[in-house]
Amino acid sequence: MGDKSGRETKDAKKKRKVFPDDYFRYDKEDAYKIISSMHEHIREAYKLGLGIKPDRPFQRVLVAGMGGSGIAGDLLKELFEAEPTCPVAVDTVKNYQTPTGIDDNTLLIAISYSGNTEETLSMYKTGIRKGCQALLVSSGGKMEELAKLNKHAIIKLPKGLQPRMAIAYLFFPILRVMENSGVVRSYEQEVNGLVDTLKQQDIREKAIELSAKCYEKIPLILADNSFYPVAYRWKTQVNENAKAPAFCHALPEFNHNEMLAYTNRIGSYYAVMLSTDREHRRVIKRIGLTKELLQHKGVAVTEIAVKGTMLKQMFTTIHLGDMTSYFLALRYETDPTPVKLIERFKRDMGPFLI
Amino acid sequence: MGDKSGRETKDAKKKRKVFPDDYFRYDKEDAYKIISSMHEHIREAYKLGLGIKPDRPFQRVLVAGMGGSGIAGDLLKELFEAEPTCPVAVDTVKNYQTPTGIDDNTLLIAISYSGNTEETLSMYKTGIRKGCQALLVSSGGKMEELAKLNKHAIIKLPKGLQPRMAIAYLFFPILRVMENSGVVRSYEQEVNGLVDTLKQQDIREKAIELSAKCYEKIPLILADNSFYPVAYRWKTQVNENAKAPAFCHALPEFNHNEMLAYTNRIGSYYAVMLSTDREHRRVIKRIGLTKELLQHKGVAVTEIAVKGTMLKQMFTTIHLGDMTSYFLALRYETDPTPVKLIERFKRDMGPFLI
Repeated sequence: MGDKSGRETKDAKKKRKVFPDDYFRYDKEDAYKIISSMHEHIREAYKLGLGIKPDRPFQRVLVAGMGGSGIAGDLLKELFEAEPTCPVAVDTVKNYQTPTGIDDNTLLIAISYSGNTEETLSMYKTGIRKGCQALLVSSGGKMEELAKLNKHAIIKLPKGLQPRMAIAYLFFPILRVMENSGVVRSYEQEVNGLVDTLKQQDIREKAIELSAKCYEKIPLILADNSFYPVAYRWKTQVNENAKAPAFCHALPEFNHNEMLAYTNRIGSYYAVMLSTDREHRRVIKRIGLTKELLQHKGVAVTEIAVKGTMLKQMFTTIHLGDMTSYFLALRYETDPTPVKLIERFKRDMGPFLI
Repeated sequence: MGDKSGRETKDAKKKRKVFPDDYFRYDKEDAYKIISSMHEHIREAYKLGLGIKPDRPFQRVLVAGMGGSGIAGDLLKELFEAEPTCPVAVDTVKNYQTPTGIDDNTLLIAISYSGNTEETLSMYKTGIRKGCQALLVSSGGKMEELAKLNKHAIIKLPKGLQPRMAIAYLFFPILRVMENSGVVRSYEQEVNGLVDTLKQQDIREKAIELSAKCYEKIPLILADNSFYPVAYRWKTQVNENAKAPAFCHALPEFNHNEMLAYTNRIGSYYAVMLSTDREHRRVIKRIGLTKELLQHKGVAVTEIAVKGTMLKQMFTTIHLGDMTSYFLALRYETDPTPVKLIERFKRDMGPFLI
């Protein structure tokens, strides 16, 4: 663990499990504290949906949201798909316009942490024009103004977080509203269990170790369809926190095309396979064979096998991904919090008048 | 264009526009001929749907298909989304099970070129159990047996192609059935125009040039949401033909996360942006700004701006992607046709008894 002078080399430092203390200085806005507080966020966020219920029944839910907000809709969709008796289908749209087939039987949930995401505002406007009833989720901005103006329900979130770090606030209030609407059973017990698990669990060492494996590699995050939103969250957290590339794909589709890609290997990859013990038995087999195949092609693989209810699996795995991308950022000597490029891009886009 | 001995260096050969003749020997099964015949495939395929019409009306379409077959459903979805009066929503599933919310108002279209794709067979079975009416698209296999057994309509495709090279056969018969069902206007004139364009158009030089740019880089294919299936097709064609990595993402979502990734650049990328002149005006602006941003981060970009109707845009761009991935395969001294890894994987999976 040291060079001849007795001092540790930079390389050895990066690879060892004990994370070098001097890396934390890159975390200028204490993202660590925010990421570690996920259990508290969940507890508070779940309360925010208390007593909120759409005025009339609905047959489908359309979630409008981009990036970290859109993911909340993707997670809800998969959670409800796993409920055998849930009568409501959820779709997420990440666009300017809402799709065909939505009408007054649709509940449109427009989510934007800032309340100013132009795509989401645009979808909200086209959605209500089609007769959807609407629920807004935001910490303020234009969304708050519009909710007041149009007398639509709004779930008001606390300010001051980076949207992607507000994931619990963007998801749990909606879950509660869905329960209140009677379309799905109560998740209260599961939410409490999840909060306890996240509070007790220490994933720091695991995240540090994983970030070492992904360092200077391109992480490939793979999961079954039902867990794809979690894989996508890992990918985007590497993109936004570490400001580094990462890609994701879903099984079984991966076996029909991307799997072949690592024959003429261009680039250096590290695969993370998320498995949940609730996959179709053939997908379980696919995960095993895919792992072997990737290793045979020179791509090292870590399998993260998660246990518990679907909700618990989703958020404990998201938490591990958040933490891993955080440590990866520090290894790249990058502050995880700011996303200056996105802010400048928004400025360059100029005002959007819908 | 040569070394001191007067002979061309390998590097110079790979980069020049005139493609080295000795590369064609890697194309052992004459994939070039098949890819160049897309216009003929389209003309024949469109006829295969003549006179086929579901027995009863339907409110939604669910396309079940993996890889090159699933893409047909993704394209249909976007094509119909662009039709202001189309009353039918299309969804594609790439899985073992069909999603919630499908019933006897759903037309299930199960597509598998071989007729033996286990995920598609499984979706077909769960779909008809839920009361869907079914249409099968296949060149034979178990799907043909099941169609006979269950008295379901089948569109029988000619045998002998690689599934991904049968894209026209997997898409155009369904389009015709949709026309016959009256859910959408006739595309006949557009299809004829597309056939003529593909027949006349010479994209060989452009594809050779693009393949040189993507050589030893990781292609990133970007497009607006509505063109995402085309970007995904490019990605998977690079994966399957060139057996090399490529990734894709959709705008505007790309601007919310992946865009940041190229700050700590791990790997060497080449971006291809597909633009269609039918994007939302804000997405047009996003394309321009994204191009600048990527270039600023050291990622070279080619923008492919396509013209014409949505259908024409889709298939001329797919054709260019197919050809580009073909030439990229040859540059990697790789036979574009065989996908031995997929075949071995299927063997290793063993039989699937549903």
